[in-house]
Amino acid sequence: MKSWEILARKELVDASPWLKLYKETVRREDGTIISDYYTIDQRDFAVIFAQISDDEILCIRHYKHGAKRVNLGLPAGYLEPGESPVAAAKRELLEETGFVAQEWQRLGAYVVDGNRGCGNVHVFFARHLVKKQEPNPDDLETISLETIRLDDLPALLLNGEIATLGAAIGISLGLLKVKQNNKE
Amino acid sequence: MKSWEILARKELVDASPWLKLYKETVRREDGTIISDYYTIDQRDFAVIFAQISDDEILCIRHYKHGAKRVNLGLPAGYLEPGESPVAAAKRELLEETGFVAQEWQRLGAYVVDGNRGCGNVHVFFARHLVKKQEPNPDDLETISLETIRLDDLPALLLNGEIATLGAAIGISLGLLKVKQNNKE
Repeated sequence: MKSWEILARKELVDASPWLKLYKETVRREDGTIISDYYTIDQRDFAVIFAQISDDEILCIRHYKHGAKRVNLGLPAGYLEPGESPVAAAKRELLEETGFVAQEWQRLGAYVVDGNRGCGNVHVFFARHLVKKQEPNPDDLETISLETIRLDDLPALLLNGEIATLGAAIGISLGLLKVKQNNKE
Repeated sequence: MKSWEILARKELVDASPWLKLYKETVRREDGTIISDYYTIDQRDFAVIFAQISDDEILCIRHYKHGAKRVNLGLPAGYLEPGESPVAAAKRELLEETGFVAQEWQRLGAYVVDGNRGCGNVHVFFARHLVKKQEPNPDDLETISLETIRLDDLPALLLNGEIATLGAAIGISLGLLKVKQNNKE
């Protein structure tokens, strides 16, 4: 099965360091050509499912402008230039919650938009947490830290309380990981 | 907890019907003002976890330009103007796989980018499938239909074989739903 070929790429908007928008001319696998295929470069980000007890995780309640409302999410944030995904995850967990974790496992990385790109999300599972400092989020958000029961997460996913895809993938993969760990 | 206020909104790019890029001036909940906050409007899409037997689902192997490679995904596609999410899910499942489902359940809807918007993904679980016609995908993709075992999905998520966030959320929420259904 073949890939597409990029024949030309025009930068329409450079909004560094946040995003760049491109208009590409591509040749598809069937040979046909599209002269207006839009792609977007965005920064990668990390999201953390942090299990604070056998039946609870750390969540964050905050306004998210993409969702246009206050909703429940996970600790998360953009990778800094040159920073590894797991280093970003450890930094964001500490900044947003004040906790460090003794155990880290990666739950995969996924391109945010299958057609246009939009960067990658790196998902991590963290447990055996130790409080290290007070939360000190160095970003645009006014946040409130909450502990949420694992048993309550499926309903929160379904009823819109968890509104963003980044939080949703962290929570759903985290719940699968907890079930796997509990079997071992 | 307060929301942000949009003080001004300038359209930078109109690439209808695919996307629009905006530069906003926003007042944050703490009163500070940001004069270059970028937001993106994109079309909503539906993704379907279609359980074809007790231990298998329908997957699609295809090139995705956002991931720049061939990878394993789920039946999915953009909502047409005025189309409901579940109607789009039923149409895409039929077009891409040739199957109709006797039972549909929604697994939530999520804004793709928590900061910038980028549209919403609507996730559906489908089962009791009946073959209706040959697949006839009316989109840009050359696709190959595959049945994948539920037990193989966690490893495929972790090792990069499932590369896009839309497919990853459909598969992880679908696996949680199967576990819930099996308990009932």
